[in-house]
Amino acid sequence: MLTQKDIEYKPISVKELLVEMKDIATLVVDLAYAAVIFKDKSLAHEVIKLEREIDRLIYHLQINIMLAARDVEDAQALQSILRVAQVTDRISNAAGDIVYPILHGVEPHSLLLDGLKQLAEPFATVKVSSKSVLSKKKTNRLRLKTKLGVDILAIHRGEKWIVTPEEDMNIQADDDLIIRGGTTGVQKIRELAA
Amino acid sequence: MLTQKDIEYKPISVKELLVEMKDIATLVVDLAYAAVIFKDKSLAHEVIKLEREIDRLIYHLQINIMLAARDVEDAQALQSILRVAQVTDRISNAAGDIVYPILHGVEPHSLLLDGLKQLAEPFATVKVSSKSVLSKKKTNRLRLKTKLGVDILAIHRGEKWIVTPEEDMNIQADDDLIIRGGTTGVQKIRELAA
Repeated sequence: MLTQKDIEYKPISVKELLVEMKDIATLVVDLAYAAVIFKDKSLAHEVIKLEREIDRLIYHLQINIMLAARDVEDAQALQSILRVAQVTDRISNAAGDIVYPILHGVEPHSLLLDGLKQLAEPFATVKVSSKSVLSKKKTNRLRLKTKLGVDILAIHRGEKWIVTPEEDMNIQADDDLIIRGGTTGVQKIRELAA
Repeated sequence: MLTQKDIEYKPISVKELLVEMKDIATLVVDLAYAAVIFKDKSLAHEVIKLEREIDRLIYHLQINIMLAARDVEDAQALQSILRVAQVTDRISNAAGDIVYPILHGVEPHSLLLDGLKQLAEPFATVKVSSKSVLSKKKTNRLRLKTKLGVDILAIHRGEKWIVTPEEDMNIQADDDLIIRGGTTGVQKIRELAA
């Protein structure tokens, strides 16, 4: 449910909304699968929060698009954007559905867990030790992706989940990372994190 | 629409079906956005083909799951897998919806194209020249991902699209690649491909 504050009209750039929406939508499905694999209820709650964040972005996108359409031609051209909004909504709802059993304490079937572990790019968790070079150098999300082909999907820091790590946010000691990537890259990160 | 041949009963491993289904579902949404960005009707058709392939996998998954459920407990545990199938179906249908305007020759709005170009990891096309080291060394998908953090989403070779490149399939001269990754990695691939 969106609150009154969420739906206050703001003149946000459609481009900005689209970029943010698409970036979250890409992440949220992976996070949902991670919540299932690691049977992590608090991560499942983060997925639901992101789902709501996407609802908010879509709301503003729709309002701004309607206001941008001045005539029939405009409206026809802008319809492709409403379509992307609608599709993104469906994808993020799907992510919410994936975590439903986890939120309700239902054990995922072992066949499902086995299957998700054998993906081309499996999910993994890594604990960053206080002695790790990752925490000492300024290591951020984009660097790991570029150097090792590994995505950081989420960082668990203290009690808090950071699910949309800013590209320039640095990894700290004691962070728990949820990552996804090829086996070589994941193995390399495990070594660096130790 | 699934044909008679598609729905013939086969005892396929549920694990195998799940892995294949999830790997395609991850790819198909990105391919759909790529088809929009590059206004590529033939790529849009590949998206529709993948959507149908997912329908086929889901069909077999559902049949095999029903046959696996012997009692109430079994059925309750296996329901999480039906849920994943249902969600995957929704995601792949969403991908089909994204390419709808492209299939029907509707020009995507420039705001949409601008937005998609500014993603954290933008899409790009790269032509592999005959002199490129990429075509001479045995360069495959997984290597590029691990070394440069760049995903190859699809290869256009001659008249054919290869949308699920096997990990060990090597890049050839004159291939057109659709890639996605950070700007550094994409730039590096452009240099290697030249």
